Amino acid sequence: MITWIDGGVCAAKGYKANGIHCGIRKNKEKKDLSLIVSDVPAAAAAVYTTNLVKGAPLVVTKQHLANGTAQAIVCNSGNANTCNANGIEIAEQMSRLAADAVGIAPDDVVVASTGVIGQPLEIAPIAKGMPALAAGLRDTGSADAAAGIMTTDTVKKEVAVSFTLGGKTCRLGGIAKGSGMIHPNMATMLVFITTDAAISAPMLQQALSGDIANTFNMLSIDGDTSTNDMVTVLANGLAGNPCITEENADFAVFMQALNTVNVALCRKIAGDGEGATRLLECSVVGAGDEATAKTVAKSVICSSLLKAAMFGADANWGRVLCAIGYSGAQVDVNKIDVAFQSKKGKIAVCKNGAGIAFSEEKAKEILLEDEIEILVDLNSGAAAATAWGCDLTYDYVRINGDYRT
Amino acid sequence: MITWIDGGVCAAKGYKANGIHCGIRKNKEKKDLSLIVSDVPAAAAAVYTTNLVKGAPLVVTKQHLANGTAQAIVCNSGNANTCNANGIEIAEQMSRLAADAVGIAPDDVVVASTGVIGQPLEIAPIAKGMPALAAGLRDTGSADAAAGIMTTDTVKKEVAVSFTLGGKTCRLGGIAKGSGMIHPNMATMLVFITTDAAISAPMLQQALSGDIANTFNMLSIDGDTSTNDMVTVLANGLAGNPCITEENADFAVFMQALNTVNVALCRKIAGDGEGATRLLECSVVGAGDEATAKTVAKSVICSSLLKAAMFGADANWGRVLCAIGYSGAQVDVNKIDVAFQSKKGKIAVCKNGAGIAFSEEKAKEILLEDEIEILVDLNSGAAAATAWGCDLTYDYVRINGDYRT
Repeated sequence: MITWIDGGVCAAKGYKANGIHCGIRKNKEKKDLSLIVSDVPAAAAAVYTTNLVKGAPLVVTKQHLANGTAQAIVCNSGNANTCNANGIEIAEQMSRLAADAVGIAPDDVVVASTGVIGQPLEIAPIAKGMPALAAGLRDTGSADAAAGIMTTDTVKKEVAVSFTLGGKTCRLGGIAKGSGMIHPNMATMLVFITTDAAISAPMLQQALSGDIANTFNMLSIDGDTSTNDMVTVLANGLAGNPCITEENADFAVFMQALNTVNVALCRKIAGDGEGATRLLECSVVGAGDEATAKTVAKSVICSSLLKAAMFGADANWGRVLCAIGYSGAQVDVNKIDVAFQSKKGKIAVCKNGAGIAFSEEKAKEILLEDEIEILVDLNSGAAAATAWGCDLTYDYVRINGDYRT
Repeated sequence: MITWIDGGVCAAKGYKANGIHCGIRKNKEKKDLSLIVSDVPAAAAAVYTTNLVKGAPLVVTKQHLANGTAQAIVCNSGNANTCNANGIEIAEQMSRLAADAVGIAPDDVVVASTGVIGQPLEIAPIAKGMPALAAGLRDTGSADAAAGIMTTDTVKKEVAVSFTLGGKTCRLGGIAKGSGMIHPNMATMLVFITTDAAISAPMLQQALSGDIANTFNMLSIDGDTSTNDMVTVLANGLAGNPCITEENADFAVFMQALNTVNVALCRKIAGDGEGATRLLECSVVGAGDEATAKTVAKSVICSSLLKAAMFGADANWGRVLCAIGYSGAQVDVNKIDVAFQSKKGKIAVCKNGAGIAFSEEKAKEILLEDEIEILVDLNSGAAAATAWGCDLTYDYVRINGDYRT
């Protein structure tokens, strides 16, 4: 049984967190530096952006995690520390400042940055803020840590679950940041997950890499794959369960818990897409194989035209078919059924690749909801996939038209 | 020498055209049916959308052009005649109506439709309008024909050139439609080109297929590949030049004329992208090979984040680097230089993959122009490519938020 609980990255035993304003951002109301620390060294795993342009913090984190161990995560917002000549140096200094503040080794620190690219990140505000940041670490600090990593996010993103492994209660929770520059085929935005389950670093990496193919890599806000995004998991083992070192029944439960948290974070990120008014979820069933289902679901979620139609609550299913047609997946377009669904009900709009009569009034009522499901049945097999995204709105343009200024 | 001339699809000898309002659109001010006719049968070539969902008119046109000959083009706007159970039948009826009106065989007709998908196209208004449409055919009718194929276009798109083959003056001109649902890897929007040059159907097809790889396939408005788009060329030979039947010097001149017209139409389409305020042209040089140059140029032009930044006249070059990084092309990001250019001058913003100091004021002045060049030097070879697109604006969202209603 997976049970929702409170606490985000502090839900699991032995984690403390904090977030403060240290001065990277001009607006003093906005936190810009976060720290998450485990009481004991933890097994660590991560996935990184596939963008060839990689933020300096990712390069440094990858080195730090080479031994599969970490104990702290430090992250700033307001500046991505990417495409700067001194990026690696700054990321290493950030790690050392965090390590010194909590008394661990610099290579046990995950370091991350998010914000504008190509403007040198000053270390001074981080050095100045670190003592207060560390002093404020507490097991109720998840919300502040979640606030400190926000950029254009409008809401903090925290989630946690509890589950049982070998008779022991375990917890797994995460915080996430990201509402623009988000697209499949990457390790997506910033997601920091902590758990007190005992699991070896290789199995933790296997679980994470396996899960993101169905979660964060099925998420798109705007088709842009960022340079700085990563998902990391720390597992400190304080729950006392028998350590997972192979693909056994406990591993399956752990995967389920991880998937639950990751899907919840995906939905939170998609629903808070830059300027978004609606969360879009495209569920594809009846595919000949999983790759086809995923390709189709992602193509639909990524279509600017469909996203704009959803903003207008317009049941323009032709754009769904169009996006399937150019997805690159080999499908029989004459077998495709499409329906829209929300809390207000479900309406079929296309059968066997052609339009069917439907009530525009009912469709509008359904599409005016905050969360819309686009249901696609390829009627060609048993494979399925789900992708998440959001509508395309005036505010996306406004937010990104003058992000730097 | 290639010389600009007036006349669009009627610039070449022996072509007449017309466009009228027949009643497919509710707004009587908007023309919705166009006809272009050659005095004599012409060699014909076409390229079609790569979308698996293909409009019925494309299927019918492909059959009609199997013998490499055509004499007329009929096209309606307001309805795409796609994803309808009776689509093929309607497209065939449209061909027959046009053929009967001008006294040719139905299989010498190119038939096209553009507009909303999935709503049956009524043949009645087309049948009713055809006599007047044909009666009004004239060698000054290109502008009306260009108007009849517009959807969300805000301006008519016509262009023509003259050139010399074997001592004979030849002309080649075209009209185009398209401002949304436009993306590389397709035969793009609707483009109808006519020429009086004598060229065999196979060489005409070779010229067209070769050229679109550098023109219409390097054009993107919104990343959506439409179901209905095609580019066709008719060559009626009335210029009296020695017929081009192989890759000789005349073929090279013909290719140059075709490229000149196609690039001009690409720029017109990009500049009139749905809601666009600026034409974007991304020129990539210094690539190791042409495929890399093309991939990089297209990725930059397609980035929603960069497009929004250009709307805001924001010199956010980090988004250019980011788009190159996720393009899939293998490039050394530490060698990339980026500059922006317009009529107001040129400004370097990134050198060797990192930011350099520049005047934000000067950058803003440059980026506030209508036509912006994004100059990327990969410093890794001699290959180059250019892609065209537009900024992402509030109006794109408005236009596509309620296209059907």
